[in-house]
Amino acid sequence: MAQRFGNIEIPVGTRFRTRQEVYAAGIHRHMQAGIAGTNPAAESIVISGGYADDLDLGDEVFYTGFGGRDPGSGRQVADQELRSWNWALMQNRNLGIPVRVVRGADPANPFSPDSGYRYDGFYEVVDFSPVEGRDGFRIFHYRLVRRPGQFDPWNPELEADDAPPRVLYTASRVARDPAIALAIKEMYGYRCQISGTLLHTPSGPYAEAGHVKPLGRPHEGPDSLANLLCLCPNDHIRFDRGSIVLSESLEIVAAESGETLGGLVMDDDHWLDPTLVGYHRFIWTELLNR
Amino acid sequence: MAQRFGNIEIPVGTRFRTRQEVYAAGIHRHMQAGIAGTNPAAESIVISGGYADDLDLGDEVFYTGFGGRDPGSGRQVADQELRSWNWALMQNRNLGIPVRVVRGADPANPFSPDSGYRYDGFYEVVDFSPVEGRDGFRIFHYRLVRRPGQFDPWNPELEADDAPPRVLYTASRVARDPAIALAIKEMYGYRCQISGTLLHTPSGPYAEAGHVKPLGRPHEGPDSLANLLCLCPNDHIRFDRGSIVLSESLEIVAAESGETLGGLVMDDDHWLDPTLVGYHRFIWTELLNR
Repeated sequence: MAQRFGNIEIPVGTRFRTRQEVYAAGIHRHMQAGIAGTNPAAESIVISGGYADDLDLGDEVFYTGFGGRDPGSGRQVADQELRSWNWALMQNRNLGIPVRVVRGADPANPFSPDSGYRYDGFYEVVDFSPVEGRDGFRIFHYRLVRRPGQFDPWNPELEADDAPPRVLYTASRVARDPAIALAIKEMYGYRCQISGTLLHTPSGPYAEAGHVKPLGRPHEGPDSLANLLCLCPNDHIRFDRGSIVLSESLEIVAAESGETLGGLVMDDDHWLDPTLVGYHRFIWTELLNR
Repeated sequence: MAQRFGNIEIPVGTRFRTRQEVYAAGIHRHMQAGIAGTNPAAESIVISGGYADDLDLGDEVFYTGFGGRDPGSGRQVADQELRSWNWALMQNRNLGIPVRVVRGADPANPFSPDSGYRYDGFYEVVDFSPVEGRDGFRIFHYRLVRRPGQFDPWNPELEADDAPPRVLYTASRVARDPAIALAIKEMYGYRCQISGTLLHTPSGPYAEAGHVKPLGRPHEGPDSLANLLCLCPNDHIRFDRGSIVLSESLEIVAAESGETLGGLVMDDDHWLDPTLVGYHRFIWTELLNR
């Protein structure tokens, strides 16, 4: 079902009368749960105001995980567990996969529709943490930030065409494909190609996908495996800021001293484009020092 | 002059007829140069369309450093040097200090005013790199992104009051004080308090200011030295994602195994609030594992 991520053709702002209509449109494929989809991450959530710890600011949403709530009183009566949909929505953050957001009518929420449900587009899951909720039980908190450049359905005076600068801005940011970033991390088992570092966290291993020739202006590097490295955050900074460059034979070289620090770890199936490696070396050595 | 950063009371969108008026208002305190201010970073820039490699998208600006340009033809005739204002504008990125942006009239730029100059608010400098410019010489490229929640002066139909969600969103993001983040890094000489790592880059040492109790909802930790650590990016991830916690005596503890990994490096003048350290330990150990 991974191919459904990001593939929805339904326009942002589309209204639905019932959860069944939302389901039938493929927007949120569960009839009751607030979170839908688990593999490799959550596909969509419905914001309907059920949890006391939720907060909806429109472009930014603080969302509570599922479980442990008494349906009658709406209060937490047990700890939430880090599994199923709660785990999945954490994986949206870990894997950089956005989640579709649907808002249901809620008189207390100025960003919700007057009635029924509304599809409000894609949000990034930018934070996750366990929290002691208002009722004393453990809940999971997720912070979601709306992808820029999408029509604001809660602001009827603002048509999408009125905001060309935001659309342009977005176009220059969304070039990154989370599937390719994930592929490079999985190819190396989240181990840094420069230092061999493997960062372990309770929510899984952590690595970053670093572009050899940077994405976007002025460099315009491609978003492909031939331009990507699996890096720990420290070496990502070192590489992006020109502390280290790669030689033609893929040795790791200190840019300022020229000293060779070792060889880049390379998988047999991973081909790095020498033109892109040369570009990175050129801007941080020849160009910077000439 | 550092106290002038962020202290300008002039409303975004204010128009000026001449550079002299812009100067007199304290918005851009140089009469000719496009970049003003050098210590600890640039204060302001004027976008006036002089450089062939500039690109203005409104919310996002690609800006060329100064120098090496023939004033007659407007072409690059020499390399730009990484010093003075060029160094300063790089420091805005390194230190997290935003820069004020003034736009001058330019018929080719839809985001510029029709005449004179206009103060367009604060932008973050998010990227810096050396690039071979169109004319074959080295130039420095800066990518600036506008702080959200500011009035869009190039969109006359949009009054600031029309966009309350963006204002709220911004309010929850700008809580971070770059001066405090800088202070903790300087206190430790950019050396990580957990691993002792010192990341060297051609643009200076690199470290991150990590909050013990996270800022913002739902945690609402304070933005103060008593809640801050100087960390390398790898240990920042480990700490924020709960791989490691700190004991009452500030030993570094592996959260899942309980193993002690060493002692936190502490400066004599640095007091960490034990309540905040306990909060972090609580959410990642007692709360996560119970």
